Amino acid sequence: MISNDDGVEAKGLKCLINAAREFGEVVVAAPAEAMSGMSHAITIKTPLRVKKIVKEEGLTVFACQGTPVDCVKMALNQLLDRKPDIILSGINHGSNASSSVVYSGTMAVAIEGAINDIPSVGFSLLDFNPDADFQASGKIVTKILKNIVDNGMEKGICLNVNIPAIPYSELKGIKVCRQTKGVWKEEFDKRIDPHNGEYYWLTGSFYNQEEDADDTDEYALKHGFVSIVPVNIDLTSYKSMAKLREWNLNSL
Amino acid sequence: MISNDDGVEAKGLKCLINAAREFGEVVVAAPAEAMSGMSHAITIKTPLRVKKIVKEEGLTVFACQGTPVDCVKMALNQLLDRKPDIILSGINHGSNASSSVVYSGTMAVAIEGAINDIPSVGFSLLDFNPDADFQASGKIVTKILKNIVDNGMEKGICLNVNIPAIPYSELKGIKVCRQTKGVWKEEFDKRIDPHNGEYYWLTGSFYNQEEDADDTDEYALKHGFVSIVPVNIDLTSYKSMAKLREWNLNSL
Repeated sequence: MISNDDGVEAKGLKCLINAAREFGEVVVAAPAEAMSGMSHAITIKTPLRVKKIVKEEGLTVFACQGTPVDCVKMALNQLLDRKPDIILSGINHGSNASSSVVYSGTMAVAIEGAINDIPSVGFSLLDFNPDADFQASGKIVTKILKNIVDNGMEKGICLNVNIPAIPYSELKGIKVCRQTKGVWKEEFDKRIDPHNGEYYWLTGSFYNQEEDADDTDEYALKHGFVSIVPVNIDLTSYKSMAKLREWNLNSL
Repeated sequence: MISNDDGVEAKGLKCLINAAREFGEVVVAAPAEAMSGMSHAITIKTPLRVKKIVKEEGLTVFACQGTPVDCVKMALNQLLDRKPDIILSGINHGSNASSSVVYSGTMAVAIEGAINDIPSVGFSLLDFNPDADFQASGKIVTKILKNIVDNGMEKGICLNVNIPAIPYSELKGIKVCRQTKGVWKEEFDKRIDPHNGEYYWLTGSFYNQEEDADDTDEYALKHGFVSIVPVNIDLTSYKSMAKLREWNLNSL
């Protein structure tokens, strides 16, 4: 099962479908419109509609109203006749490395898959161009899918795979990394409308807070490697629990 | 600094403001409209507007278009003249325990605060009623705020506090817990519109996948305790990295 956040028409989705079809039957449930930055949002207050737009041997494609996570829920609960073997998301146009994992609709698909105990991977290419070159990305998808089929995947995690925007021949390899500590800064462009009202556009730039570390996804990507970060769905900070238990919480 | 996902008019927000004012100056930047289920979504494709609706001694309230995370970004980048000491979110009308942490706009506010290295807490009361009784919740907020002021908070985490919907006198205490493994099931209500079109409402019920465990937030809440889960902003599964490094990823 495949979804994304750039919408059912995105070039990155087509590349992912092509790579996945080599491994078996593919069902796509992707947002009818682009849904970047939707994170793990779900649609509670408006009803959702679904349209089957492709049905051929080995491939069914549904265009869903709603968010990327709505698409996964819809697929698992309504559209599929059995639990999918693997859930793939993307290929996203743009990076989901570092803290971008929490804003990403692409990664929300993979996290939703993992919550449902299904091996799940989100793929992103570091190129926002709608017409980006996904040739190298397709080969990376094949490589990682083959590994999942051969080795299986642990429960409780999904994979965040980011791919540098360079030709396949220049890729240095694939690196298992940790999430870089990073933050977005100066995030608004303030403007005045023709009626003298102020409004803001969300913008800003990413700031890597550990430039010197060599085991992060940002470092790998900067040095020509594909990065793989295993992402927890249990967000508990176990090492912080002991410290909190020293707080004065007993007497209400 | 305070935000929420139920919107600037919500009763739970007022309770949180009242408790926080005992500790210092409060600036609220909350969504103009209710934003439940928005998770960590951000608004990229439409501009945002902000309106100052309250300005009195020690309290300023802004109503922002956009999502809960937009509100935090707007506050940190445009509305505040310095970095806030603490970010609080809620009090949410309804539980954010277990895997609900990933769907929650309330918890996204706290996670966004922690990404910006600010001690941050999301509070939720297990009562969806817009007119819920927040009296006990107010006391819990005070208790936890006092602990943060006295003990400080580690970087890299925020707190997910859930409060059972029972009177203060019946609360058993406050428990530091881990996130319960849980999932939502049978999530769609399929209907037919007057023009014979199918549509779906997102619905369904929560399924606790580890009923027997006694160290989870769901267990604590069921037994009359307030639950506190420390939530990581680094989602890396460090223990999974070694296993992934055994994959065949070297030869491209």
